[in-house]
Amino acid sequence: MSWLPVSRDSDFPIQNLPYGVFGRPGELHRVGVAIGDQVLDVAALAMAGALEYPECFVARSLNTFLAAGRSVWQQTRQRLVQLLDDGGARPSVEPYLVPMADVLLHMPFEIGDYVDFYSSIEHATNVGQILRPDGEPLPPNWRHLPIGYHGRAGSVVVSGTPIVRPTGQRKIGKASLPTHGQSQRLDIEAEVGFVVGTPTSLGSPVAAADYADHVFGVVLVNDWSARDLQVWEGQPLGPFLSKSFATSVSPWVVPLEALEYARVDGPAQDPSPLPYLRRGERAGLDIALKVSLNGTVISRPPFAGMYWTADQQLAHLTVNGAPLRTGDLFASGTVSGPQVDQRGSLIELTWDGDQPLALPDGVIRTYLEDGDVVSIRGSAPGVNGTTIGFGEVTGQILPARGSR
Amino acid sequence: MSWLPVSRDSDFPIQNLPYGVFGRPGELHRVGVAIGDQVLDVAALAMAGALEYPECFVARSLNTFLAAGRSVWQQTRQRLVQLLDDGGARPSVEPYLVPMADVLLHMPFEIGDYVDFYSSIEHATNVGQILRPDGEPLPPNWRHLPIGYHGRAGSVVVSGTPIVRPTGQRKIGKASLPTHGQSQRLDIEAEVGFVVGTPTSLGSPVAAADYADHVFGVVLVNDWSARDLQVWEGQPLGPFLSKSFATSVSPWVVPLEALEYARVDGPAQDPSPLPYLRRGERAGLDIALKVSLNGTVISRPPFAGMYWTADQQLAHLTVNGAPLRTGDLFASGTVSGPQVDQRGSLIELTWDGDQPLALPDGVIRTYLEDGDVVSIRGSAPGVNGTTIGFGEVTGQILPARGSR
Repeated sequence: MSWLPVSRDSDFPIQNLPYGVFGRPGELHRVGVAIGDQVLDVAALAMAGALEYPECFVARSLNTFLAAGRSVWQQTRQRLVQLLDDGGARPSVEPYLVPMADVLLHMPFEIGDYVDFYSSIEHATNVGQILRPDGEPLPPNWRHLPIGYHGRAGSVVVSGTPIVRPTGQRKIGKASLPTHGQSQRLDIEAEVGFVVGTPTSLGSPVAAADYADHVFGVVLVNDWSARDLQVWEGQPLGPFLSKSFATSVSPWVVPLEALEYARVDGPAQDPSPLPYLRRGERAGLDIALKVSLNGTVISRPPFAGMYWTADQQLAHLTVNGAPLRTGDLFASGTVSGPQVDQRGSLIELTWDGDQPLALPDGVIRTYLEDGDVVSIRGSAPGVNGTTIGFGEVTGQILPARGSR
Repeated sequence: MSWLPVSRDSDFPIQNLPYGVFGRPGELHRVGVAIGDQVLDVAALAMAGALEYPECFVARSLNTFLAAGRSVWQQTRQRLVQLLDDGGARPSVEPYLVPMADVLLHMPFEIGDYVDFYSSIEHATNVGQILRPDGEPLPPNWRHLPIGYHGRAGSVVVSGTPIVRPTGQRKIGKASLPTHGQSQRLDIEAEVGFVVGTPTSLGSPVAAADYADHVFGVVLVNDWSARDLQVWEGQPLGPFLSKSFATSVSPWVVPLEALEYARVDGPAQDPSPLPYLRRGERAGLDIALKVSLNGTVISRPPFAGMYWTADQQLAHLTVNGAPLRTGDLFASGTVSGPQVDQRGSLIELTWDGDQPLALPDGVIRTYLEDGDVVSIRGSAPGVNGTTIGFGEVTGQILPARGSR
């Protein structure tokens, strides 16, 4: 319990303490920690001598801190808990609290590579049924490895960045030839992303059991997707422009340490994965996602049920010797549960437009329209009945370039 | 003609002047320019006042120079030509020449995103015939857009970096289940890569006609590929671990300006591409590649015949508003010509192992074996019968981890 009053429904109790990069408009970007509705200016706090490793915090991104490794992450967290818990520290800490409402939240880390997995069996099955109605919904490799691909790191943006409707090649209706124009099937993908701290060198696989030595924390991800572009371009080498126009992440990186009480066993796997993919105890995370479209909750995807867990994903992506860099982001793939209202994308929620969503006031949606706002929130259980929140990842669709 | 004697068969006459990052063992990495068998230490030259923009050259990577934009690239090139051409400058320049044999060549740029295209119609047709013998060799979208995907930027390495044979999942022979182990079908892909200098912001497509405002120069690329991993993992989201273990680039970035006399018209395109993909005049480059395996030339792929040219690739990859960052690399995809001995990969040269290569002394090769050394060289016509060379991209295969 902090000396700082934190409302019970806040995403950011003292048990959370996620890291981000903030500043008032025009101010230097620097590292902060969320507590209640305040940002603790840990850069200034460290400059004042109350926190070690000032070079980690007087920085435009979290990368120096991320690269410092697990023992620095742990020490810093312990010290912050102490400062916010001990009433005696209040006079020296309070001057460094800034109302979150007064600041801008920036992209929290400088990104290395961005990998997107495809690890929800419900999502993969739904998409398989929609796109290949006459075939097996799951590809033959799906249960043997966590399928993934590299996305465009340069278009990963922080929550709040407007999303311009992309243009690209697609075939409309039963047209035999493609045309170039606005995407007409603009979609979301509600995902959970893992941020790499400690790097590795070329040729050094990371065992599943060691994943917490390398992964610092967790963000929410919206992997915006243009389905019409994707269907036309996607074979044989996978998604490209249908995804590369923008991917949004939440501004607060929740440390794995804050999610200790959210750990759950992943679902049973059949067949049993190869040894290098054997999952650790309680490798899943019980994160409840909530997807809103223009303020109406349209889905509640449960992350706890993901078939492939983050430790398996990391082991797989490095088993060939691929190196990790600080700031690498790997995302889960769309999170969908078994229920209709647990699907994490509009292609699933509307069955590719065949079953439109009815929103309040009679509004109907298949895919996103200009002006739509999508927000994804997440929360996980913390110690003693507390809630570890993720804040939100949000974005508004702007009309395509040239159409405004 | 420089006052510095340059042998006629050198890759680096004064008409070339490619940029790299070098240093003697243990020395600070800094920017240099290749001329003959020497490296001109342009960092030191700029510090001495003989060259503007010292911050571009006293740097561990080319990125500051790349970001400075086309007019700085042009001014610097003019000034270097003047210094190396004018005998009067010799006394002030000569002290900054270092024998190339004495230095290490490092990764020349800090990489942003790495995109790999698939733009040789001969390569795509060959691979289609090998992998889908009963289907159409070219996918239906192939002639409408330059197919590409994002590769792992973090494993792009400079020429000379040893390549450890990757392990991963693959199905051996007619096995019904995959196993984890060494790749048994380790391959090369001889490619040409384009290095982005001037960045763009989210939502700003680059027209094909503007590509030379953004692309600084050209490197050779070997996109090492594990075919057995690729066949098993590649559907539905494309290549991942089969490519992400290593991609090698040549250390010298040849400026587009040096390739003015190598420009050729690309091949006719049928159907005519959509307007945003319309190609500029002489958008192709007459670069002759030469692939050697353990010293024997096994292929001479002609880059001039590539179906999709770099200006089209850049226009495509940004048409959806994806931003460019300084250091982004986009590669052509395997360069193959119509002749058997012009194929740029072993899967094509040996028809997936069915037609082994006979090397000198009775050595037989299908895919790469441990200890094999692969080198790719390239050359293009320069002004007045000169040759613009690319140096080489080379790598030796080391045994898989755990098997040494």
